Amino acid sequence: MTDAWQLFEEWSGTLAAVGGAAGLLGWDRETGMPPGGSETRARQLGTLATIHHRELVRPDLDGPLAELEAHDGLPPERARQVELMLRARRRAQRMPVSLVRDLSEATSRCVGMWIELRPTGDFAAFAEPFRRVVELKRLQARTVADGVEPYDALLDDYEPGARAAELVPVFADLRERLTPLVEIGASRPRPPLPRRQWPAEAQVALARDLAEMVGYDLSGGAVALSAHPFTSSPGYGDVRFTTRVDEANPVGSIMAVLHEAGHAMYEQGFPAAYARTALLDAPSMGAHESQSRFWENHVGRTRAFWERITPLLHGRFPDAMRGLETAALHREATAVEPSYIRVEADEVTYNLHIALRFELELALMRGDLEVGDLPGEWNTRMREFLGVTPPDDGAGVMQDIHWPEGLFGYFPTYTLGNLYAAQLAEAADTHLGGLDAAVADGRFPEILGFMRDRVHHSGNLLPTGELMRAATGTPLSADALVAHLRGVATG
Amino acid sequence: MTDAWQLFEEWSGTLAAVGGAAGLLGWDRETGMPPGGSETRARQLGTLATIHHRELVRPDLDGPLAELEAHDGLPPERARQVELMLRARRRAQRMPVSLVRDLSEATSRCVGMWIELRPTGDFAAFAEPFRRVVELKRLQARTVADGVEPYDALLDDYEPGARAAELVPVFADLRERLTPLVEIGASRPRPPLPRRQWPAEAQVALARDLAEMVGYDLSGGAVALSAHPFTSSPGYGDVRFTTRVDEANPVGSIMAVLHEAGHAMYEQGFPAAYARTALLDAPSMGAHESQSRFWENHVGRTRAFWERITPLLHGRFPDAMRGLETAALHREATAVEPSYIRVEADEVTYNLHIALRFELELALMRGDLEVGDLPGEWNTRMREFLGVTPPDDGAGVMQDIHWPEGLFGYFPTYTLGNLYAAQLAEAADTHLGGLDAAVADGRFPEILGFMRDRVHHSGNLLPTGELMRAATGTPLSADALVAHLRGVATG
Repeated sequence: MTDAWQLFEEWSGTLAAVGGAAGLLGWDRETGMPPGGSETRARQLGTLATIHHRELVRPDLDGPLAELEAHDGLPPERARQVELMLRARRRAQRMPVSLVRDLSEATSRCVGMWIELRPTGDFAAFAEPFRRVVELKRLQARTVADGVEPYDALLDDYEPGARAAELVPVFADLRERLTPLVEIGASRPRPPLPRRQWPAEAQVALARDLAEMVGYDLSGGAVALSAHPFTSSPGYGDVRFTTRVDEANPVGSIMAVLHEAGHAMYEQGFPAAYARTALLDAPSMGAHESQSRFWENHVGRTRAFWERITPLLHGRFPDAMRGLETAALHREATAVEPSYIRVEADEVTYNLHIALRFELELALMRGDLEVGDLPGEWNTRMREFLGVTPPDDGAGVMQDIHWPEGLFGYFPTYTLGNLYAAQLAEAADTHLGGLDAAVADGRFPEILGFMRDRVHHSGNLLPTGELMRAATGTPLSADALVAHLRGVATG
Repeated sequence: MTDAWQLFEEWSGTLAAVGGAAGLLGWDRETGMPPGGSETRARQLGTLATIHHRELVRPDLDGPLAELEAHDGLPPERARQVELMLRARRRAQRMPVSLVRDLSEATSRCVGMWIELRPTGDFAAFAEPFRRVVELKRLQARTVADGVEPYDALLDDYEPGARAAELVPVFADLRERLTPLVEIGASRPRPPLPRRQWPAEAQVALARDLAEMVGYDLSGGAVALSAHPFTSSPGYGDVRFTTRVDEANPVGSIMAVLHEAGHAMYEQGFPAAYARTALLDAPSMGAHESQSRFWENHVGRTRAFWERITPLLHGRFPDAMRGLETAALHREATAVEPSYIRVEADEVTYNLHIALRFELELALMRGDLEVGDLPGEWNTRMREFLGVTPPDDGAGVMQDIHWPEGLFGYFPTYTLGNLYAAQLAEAADTHLGGLDAAVADGRFPEILGFMRDRVHHSGNLLPTGELMRAATGTPLSADALVAHLRGVATG
């Protein structure tokens, strides 16, 4: 037993180190790498992925892992580690090497074509490499599936334990209750921000101010710029995030900072004892997104928050802030406006974009829909859910990188994150005697403390459902999110 | 054959990718990593080193490698790759795993103690962990050695093919001819720079200006700040360097930029066809240092250079440069002054610092000297070579990190680099019709072109001796360096 556990720990530690190294290579690719390095970087990442896979399926671990799995006296933290590592190992073992290679080639090719064709919106040309991706993902889903719904096998990569059968009614419910709010929200007046210059350098400095203010620890992190904001951790004690800046409007960057700091503070809250183990992780993408969305939408989009940071804004942007009311910035941060593009969507319309994608990708993986049908089905739903029609497929069905990359089953986790965030915000509201009041008073350590206790400190010890039920005191439901969004829509 | 070669290429490619990933982790540790990440980073680097070692000695390659080694019709570029990879493999195979582990532990411990004890200069306390390092390095030298001089086995790690027997007379000769120059140089008047403020940000901007001016390609690189300047390449197409800044004096940073840009341009000049092979490298540390020293000392410390960059300096430092003569900066860059500290030494005294270290480490590895004798022997030589006595062992025998890190055999490569640089400068002078004139005219592409043709383009195709003989037209000798330093000393 001692021997088996020691071997297991070394094995997990090696996998964590290789994964962390790959994570740093990815971070650097987006933040520091010169253009000349891209081909070499792709090969380095490919090599690390191969090494990771080879280590994950190492045959000499069959015996020790069987011993640990059969052992029923393991303490819960060890038992969970064994469960998580075995799950990853079995998924890797079930994926034939040829399929991994075919998928990698097909998605590389499809992403390349997507980059070229998205601006033109030429779906017919895009469809050819994309059909191959869909075909291989269907094959993967059938190969890895252990139930009747192949889509679940893909979903499981991002949201372990989630089932399409449970998500279908959730999205139907959301769709029905959110659609009427869109019109209400969009009818609110929204005078444009006056034209001002918000210097990039001051926005980056503000990013650090705000992140530290809400509780992000810079001595275990770094803030950088990238084309698309993201959070990345090469390993315990080092959790970094990026933002982007628009010198004509600071609101996007501020919301991105709150969002990414939410992700980053989650990872900074994992216990030190979980370093280099499978427990140093969120149990799912949805759980991760609950943290980013909580700080972005339930803290960062409140009037209390904008009032709280007004002095900071005057300090960093003395010219742009002159004579500008905090209310104008808050209005900008909470405006509702149906649009074609998901990543620019407001809080109210956002989940309708996801509902649309979930319905289509589920049908696609089930074989109820073919690639050629996508543009028509997409546009029909856009009109139905949001009342708008994209001018072309580039602004419609081809807008996201997820499908060309083969990420089917990923989109629903965004909405799961929003649902959990709203439920957590309700629980925090109760616990803190009013979340808005806590924000207004700058009691950020208390807010973060709530999340640390309820969510962060358990790392990946509990599955998402169990974790969130305990943290919120309620089962998964759309009620909290819809109530919150009704407030946003009515202003 | 085709199969063996294909396997060989994959194997070298994997090793290059793992090495490149480790390189990036090292770069990031010095330039971007927050303090919280250091423990995890150490483990990641340890894991990658283990993976690299395991891959290097993979037993299933014995057959294919024997086949390739026996094949006498391989084109020279392939034959050299096989030779280089086999040399690395055999060195790795000769190192018992227990010795690798013991050395890693002993040097980690010794470096930790060194960091703590160097400021106090407590050699007695330092000697205890250091004795263990020396003992293990002696063991390594005996284990790996294939000749009568165990020191050569260590030297070979940094300067393949070099032999102590050849270096001893070179250093004796240098010592004899340089010692008299020290006094001459130190007697030159050197009025201090007036007190001015040289803003850090402008120094970093100037670093990019200067690097681009001499031919460094920023689209395949990056410039950052770190405590000690260094150059690092995570792989083909991506060669980065750092500098450090002192706001009271810009000369150190400018010299560091020329030095590191020299290293970086060397790597940027390797042929694209050598990417991901053992040929994408310098044949030795001495060859690498020849490039940094050439740009630093034979370009960057000339009066022509300082006159050439005067307009750039006025542009970046309008206040500090007001009323300042270029000659004052040039005098600062070429001042000669005996001191205790190698990394602060001028061109003339520098190689005497190295001669001292070479003599001591050779005697130490031969067993002719024991750890306890080091401080006395050090101080005797300091007086003899440079006429100064360090105030304590922290400023004396304990000043460098190399020995605590176990890097015996490394120091001589600095002087070899200086010797080659001076010989290359003489060859460039002839080829360009005067190197100074080329610098004065800003004909940097011609200077770089000379180095590209003579040195960079061969990567690691030729051993250093052969490469340098062809590039300079003369065998290794101290004449060029001594002539150059006589010029520096007499001003």
